[in-house]
Amino acid sequence: MTADADPSRTADAQGGPKAVDHEQAAELAVRVENGALRLHELEDETDPDTAVAARRQLVAKKTDTDPSTIGSYGFPAGVAEPNIENMIGTVQVPVGVVGPVEINGGALEDERYLPLATTEGALLASVNRGCSVINHAGGATARVTKAGMTRAPVFRVTDVAEGLALVEWVRDHRQKLREAAESTTNHGELEDVTPYVVGNNVYLRFRYDTKDAMGMNMITIATKEVCELIEAETTASLVSLSGNLCTDKKPAAINAVEGRGRSVTADVVVPHEVVSEKLHTTPEAIAEINMRKNLIGSAKAGSFGFNAHVANPVAAMFLATGQDEAQVVEGANAITTAEVTDDGDLYFSVSLASLEVGTVGGGTKLPTQQEALEILGVRGGGDPAGSNADALAEAIAVGSLAGELSLLAALGSQHLSSAHESLGR
Amino acid sequence: MTADADPSRTADAQGGPKAVDHEQAAELAVRVENGALRLHELEDETDPDTAVAARRQLVAKKTDTDPSTIGSYGFPAGVAEPNIENMIGTVQVPVGVVGPVEINGGALEDERYLPLATTEGALLASVNRGCSVINHAGGATARVTKAGMTRAPVFRVTDVAEGLALVEWVRDHRQKLREAAESTTNHGELEDVTPYVVGNNVYLRFRYDTKDAMGMNMITIATKEVCELIEAETTASLVSLSGNLCTDKKPAAINAVEGRGRSVTADVVVPHEVVSEKLHTTPEAIAEINMRKNLIGSAKAGSFGFNAHVANPVAAMFLATGQDEAQVVEGANAITTAEVTDDGDLYFSVSLASLEVGTVGGGTKLPTQQEALEILGVRGGGDPAGSNADALAEAIAVGSLAGELSLLAALGSQHLSSAHESLGR
Amino acid sequence: MTADADPSRTADAQGGPKAVDHEQAAELAVRVENGALRLHELEDETDPDTAVAARRQLVAKKTDTDPSTIGSYGFPAGVAEPNIENMIGTVQVPVGVVGPVEINGGALEDERYLPLATTEGALLASVNRGCSVINHAGGATARVTKAGMTRAPVFRVTDVAEGLALVEWVRDHRQKLREAAESTTNHGELEDVTPYVVGNNVYLRFRYDTKDAMGMNMITIATKEVCELIEAETTASLVSLSGNLCTDKKPAAINAVEGRGRSVTADVVVPHEVVSEKLHTTPEAIAEINMRKNLIGSAKAGSFGFNAHVANPVAAMFLATGQDEAQVVEGANAITTAEVTDDGDLYFSVSLASLEVGTVGGGTKLPTQQEALEILGVRGGGDPAGSNADALAEAIAVGSLAGELSLLAALGSQHLSSAHESLGR
Amino acid sequence: MTADADPSRTADAQGGPKAVDHEQAAELAVRVENGALRLHELEDETDPDTAVAARRQLVAKKTDTDPSTIGSYGFPAGVAEPNIENMIGTVQVPVGVVGPVEINGGALEDERYLPLATTEGALLASVNRGCSVINHAGGATARVTKAGMTRAPVFRVTDVAEGLALVEWVRDHRQKLREAAESTTNHGELEDVTPYVVGNNVYLRFRYDTKDAMGMNMITIATKEVCELIEAETTASLVSLSGNLCTDKKPAAINAVEGRGRSVTADVVVPHEVVSEKLHTTPEAIAEINMRKNLIGSAKAGSFGFNAHVANPVAAMFLATGQDEAQVVEGANAITTAEVTDDGDLYFSVSLASLEVGTVGGGTKLPTQQEALEILGVRGGGDPAGSNADALAEAIAVGSLAGELSLLAALGSQHLSSAHESLGR
Repeated sequence: MTADADPSRTADAQGGPKAVDHEQAAELAVRVENGALRLHELEDETDPDTAVAARRQLVAKKTDTDPSTIGSYGFPAGVAEPNIENMIGTVQVPVGVVGPVEINGGALEDERYLPLATTEGALLASVNRGCSVINHAGGATARVTKAGMTRAPVFRVTDVAEGLALVEWVRDHRQKLREAAESTTNHGELEDVTPYVVGNNVYLRFRYDTKDAMGMNMITIATKEVCELIEAETTASLVSLSGNLCTDKKPAAINAVEGRGRSVTADVVVPHEVVSEKLHTTPEAIAEINMRKNLIGSAKAGSFGFNAHVANPVAAMFLATGQDEAQVVEGANAITTAEVTDDGDLYFSVSLASLEVGTVGGGTKLPTQQEALEILGVRGGGDPAGSNADALAEAIAVGSLAGELSLLAALGSQHLSSAHESLGR
Repeated sequence: MTADADPSRTADAQGGPKAVDHEQAAELAVRVENGALRLHELEDETDPDTAVAARRQLVAKKTDTDPSTIGSYGFPAGVAEPNIENMIGTVQVPVGVVGPVEINGGALEDERYLPLATTEGALLASVNRGCSVINHAGGATARVTKAGMTRAPVFRVTDVAEGLALVEWVRDHRQKLREAAESTTNHGELEDVTPYVVGNNVYLRFRYDTKDAMGMNMITIATKEVCELIEAETTASLVSLSGNLCTDKKPAAINAVEGRGRSVTADVVVPHEVVSEKLHTTPEAIAEINMRKNLIGSAKAGSFGFNAHVANPVAAMFLATGQDEAQVVEGANAITTAEVTDDGDLYFSVSLASLEVGTVGGGTKLPTQQEALEILGVRGGGDPAGSNADALAEAIAVGSLAGELSLLAALGSQHLSSAHESLGR
Repeated sequence: MTADADPSRTADAQGGPKAVDHEQAAELAVRVENGALRLHELEDETDPDTAVAARRQLVAKKTDTDPSTIGSYGFPAGVAEPNIENMIGTVQVPVGVVGPVEINGGALEDERYLPLATTEGALLASVNRGCSVINHAGGATARVTKAGMTRAPVFRVTDVAEGLALVEWVRDHRQKLREAAESTTNHGELEDVTPYVVGNNVYLRFRYDTKDAMGMNMITIATKEVCELIEAETTASLVSLSGNLCTDKKPAAINAVEGRGRSVTADVVVPHEVVSEKLHTTPEAIAEINMRKNLIGSAKAGSFGFNAHVANPVAAMFLATGQDEAQVVEGANAITTAEVTDDGDLYFSVSLASLEVGTVGGGTKLPTQQEALEILGVRGGGDPAGSNADALAEAIAVGSLAGELSLLAALGSQHLSSAHESLGR
Repeated sequence: MTADADPSRTADAQGGPKAVDHEQAAELAVRVENGALRLHELEDETDPDTAVAARRQLVAKKTDTDPSTIGSYGFPAGVAEPNIENMIGTVQVPVGVVGPVEINGGALEDERYLPLATTEGALLASVNRGCSVINHAGGATARVTKAGMTRAPVFRVTDVAEGLALVEWVRDHRQKLREAAESTTNHGELEDVTPYVVGNNVYLRFRYDTKDAMGMNMITIATKEVCELIEAETTASLVSLSGNLCTDKKPAAINAVEGRGRSVTADVVVPHEVVSEKLHTTPEAIAEINMRKNLIGSAKAGSFGFNAHVANPVAAMFLATGQDEAQVVEGANAITTAEVTDDGDLYFSVSLASLEVGTVGGGTKLPTQQEALEILGVRGGGDPAGSNADALAEAIAVGSLAGELSLLAALGSQHLSSAHESLGR
């Protein structure tokens, strides 16, 4: 039984899991235990939900546990087949909403509820407070300032002379490379390639417009085609389709500097009365804390993240909307700025350098994640293509802005009260 | 209805959600819409599950969507109260297992199934292949080589002379600081404090043993107490309880170099026959790819992550076991090494500098996450204290090792076949 | 008297200092001491050498010292007027030569003596040994793989919407920007501009071909012109002609990744017999040390320099040839690679990402520095323009290669002997 | 003939070069050309100055040049023997002074002239203006906040279990390690060792108090002794005496974060009247530019240097005082801060994390460099030991402070005038 034992809700293909054949599940679990069947082969023997139940039963027995809540998932296991192997159920993470928040974006012009999934108490309350302040300030501005998904294979050459020759060949054959890449995809477009030479290694960083898809799969296939062309027409030898200058799922300056996925900024001017009435602090205090903590502190830490906790809203919105959680890494490459305007108000901004998001493909196709995208109003492909992913990026930027504003303000009000106490002693 | 409509399963407090009062939910949703009630106040009016239903209904109406699968969660909403506000249900992420894999750890000595939650198809298959190879090699060795959770407040001083005085005061009052910190906690122990001076800012990086807890809340409270002592006894003024030298949820060299949470390494020697038979490549090819991609490529990218995709298993095991997803950022600070031994075998290792994990507190208390921790055999506090979190760190390191090995081997076998083709042309 | 009291040498304008009017110098020193004249105004009152002597005399008196060796310089002080203010003489740094070394470069095809100025004993001996090995290996290959000097002003805009508008305006007015820039220079060419947006700050990184000049002055003037155009035609307001994304004289990933000045690589294949006979080690040992020290060690250190001591030859050749010593900072952004070839030989390379060099302008015009450039065969403007600076970059890369090879080999032979001892115990 | 053909100056051992035997020099040059003698063996055949002349003559002939100014050096070549091999003379760099500037340091309490050697015109004028402003503000405060020179050998172990065992052995044998280290030196003291484990590599970062010496040689010898002890008593095998976590002469976060040599800060509060009258700008403008350029700009560049041009005074004072020019690299790890005080004045600071300086040993023994140290009042060993090197560090910090202040103010006054023009149009 689920929380939604709502009579109006039917367990149809989308809405709920298929019935499990418990007898068959038990029998299959025994076959796996006996070595007659391998754990990943269960889906070959029965329907997805029964396979999942059998696997869970086997694991339960072997580990002497009862993972039944993991088995209490709310959709047919079959829909998750492209997303996982060896499934035993789902992990369930609480999801909530903040807002609605007013966004004046390049792709997203409206009030939106932002869905966040997290296990960190107080996060939504904090982001929600930020949203409320943003609304009192007339909404947040947001823009995608750069876009493009990258893949950077590494080639081995004989020596630097041959390396330079490869660089020149690539420069002279852009059109041919583009044609090879785009022969593999209806959506992706090869926009650019930047070469990097280190000894007898040549890294070629290909940048693509992947529209509404995050695009890693799309561009990996396209880049593979390009690499085959290069290997066929030059003496270079492909070592790896990814040479780590992409850079995917690692903290890397190249992403913080040059961007990957969407580079997106959200900002707002908060009138000083709003800062004092709603946030119980001053623009000056927030600007000072931002300087000492987010700028100077991060400088001293050798950081790519000059912010307070942008990874929190990024991770929570990624999780809610089916993004790749491992890409939270790059999502944290963000700079928060705060300053007092000539009118004494607070200018506040968050700039995320490398937000890799999509509204189609990957985890976005799962039922709960689709519903979260719908709540945000950005499910599926946008019109024009790419606009939904732009909108998602803007929404995450605004969520980050709200989170930063709220946390810095909280520090500011503590700082003020601490200062008051100090004066009193 | 859930996949587990298993007669043996009862919807008790732990096992399933409470029944929703749909009539009340509808009425409450109207009150929120009319402005008579605020979105976050619903839990004050009714039971948690009905509040969640009311909120979901309101959002559904406002956004013209039907987030009913989000409502199909498998446990009472009340258990998630410490973890989220404004809850509308759960997001469900497929979870599976790989292994069992043999681990020769400092805290974990056994075969274990590793639970991973992800939406990235092929990830579990890949990690599973790595686990199989590790088993053929006699298991992986794993050790936590450094531990300690950090919080680094920033203080403002008048000038560097006063800054140096503060540094000296702190050095001379370690015992007093320790007592203040430990007055707030039964578990945490203050181990160390390192000062950093930048102009009129003094950052004090406090490092704690937090046992089986990831420990951010614990040490934030303890550090607050310490800061009050410092403000009372010196002229320094606290600006922010976190000055970003902690560093939490940002990519930062200080964590990659000095560690945060657990620094943990897993390694294995894979006999060359196993490399060729199971992985269809050679130790030499894997070592070469690791050098060109993970070492030189990441060097050129200005990265803190010298690995292929450690963030993938880290994120997936974090999600399955209730860790803080935003801390995947620091989890990606990992270095993979590969070399051919004198016997022609493959030495392979992954060292994660800053893995922030716990088996108590935070998201680990949620039902599906608890079940995943049970499958791994590390639920709750360990004996001795801290050993379960150590074991979890070792398990994640081994999962990362398996993932790296499998991916590099896949690149290696492509590289070999590509090389063969080249020879053929 | 100087070491070169060679009868064939005449103290002409170039060859030696002018005679000092000691009486006038003494009188001027008194006037400065009495406050009648300011220290920097001495050149207004007399010839450069007498002014220098007067200033030295004043400082000698005030500090109770006798800086007479500083006064024993070997050229007329007047030639240094564009290079310094408040001159009291010269600091003299020993300069020597290594080589000749065989270079197969893109711009430099020959045997060359490399001049190095240093105070670090053993450096030239070490680099010289490397040169000798390179010669035994048939010479080093060298290529400039990327070139361009950068300046990145920062503009303030109202918000990100205006920031994006500026980015688009710049993209649409490349030709106009180029014309403005090139109106200020006969040599420099604006090649590229890359925008970076952070909140209400827009950084525009302009990249120029500066031919044989290092080019900072040239491009600063050109960029100033460009900025005036931008301020005139957009709403953006220039904050600083350098916004630190250039990046000049600071260690920065943007230079290590994207390059600045010349990106240049030198490499060599050293036959294994040469490695054993001349270097008393093996290709395997060198490759291993390079991996553990230069790659993994630097990775763990959070470094942009994956090398042993490239800064040593860079600093020494910069000093000898009149480059800007503060730009040694960027010169250290170098990656050394070492691997064993299929034939058992040693492939060895050094890639310097951001070597900012010139053969005209700045310190290259000073007499001793000009002589060092002549020894190297790269004094003044090249034909074609830029080829001399390319050649200088290649020479420094080869010097760095020699230095790296020699040091790693020394470590290798110690490692081997240590290993032998270990076996013996 | 030199500029100082001052009758009061005698060409004694210190004061001038020995007479060259030109006949012998010519003969020796021929022997080298004929292959009868090697270039570096000349000092075995004759006195240092004649050897230098012979080598210069040979190079002149081979390269068809006349490096006679290089030969016009002002001291006996013999004094440079510990500093260079294959000497052909000296490179002469103009040196000047700025100041005197008032310093309220921990080790340096006085007005001092700062000597700077550079080829960059306008640098001394700029630093001098900064000094003047500092004096108007009552002088700069300076403090060394951390000190210690580091060497980090890398050891190979079997696997991480053995690696952890080594870490524990080191922790348990600190005293023994200290005794081994200190058996090699009368001055150095081993203060600390920090272990870092990456796979089967263990890096041990030893930190020493090296008193007035920069100390690389001293601690390399001491660490060698320590390494022999470790190899004798454990199973670990030394790979390299430097494993690049030292980190010497490479830009590395470990130095920027943890410091190397001296961590030193200089700061000043400049009254707003002084800012406006002497610098023609405002505290607000300077603070803004510092934020947009030095903090946010450097953040976006992925930099370890959050300053405008600290490397300029560092390089110039290093060169003047005989420091190792290659260590300018680490000297650039500096953060500049600027803020408006409650009274509307300018608080301004520069913090250099890793300034590696000494007043004894290395290049400090050369004649011109000694004279520069004397001008600064810090020649030779201090009393107490270490105080002269501390004083030198403080002086360089103040020079950097002056340079930063002057450059930011110049940008500020341009910014203001530009703003005025904008208002006018």
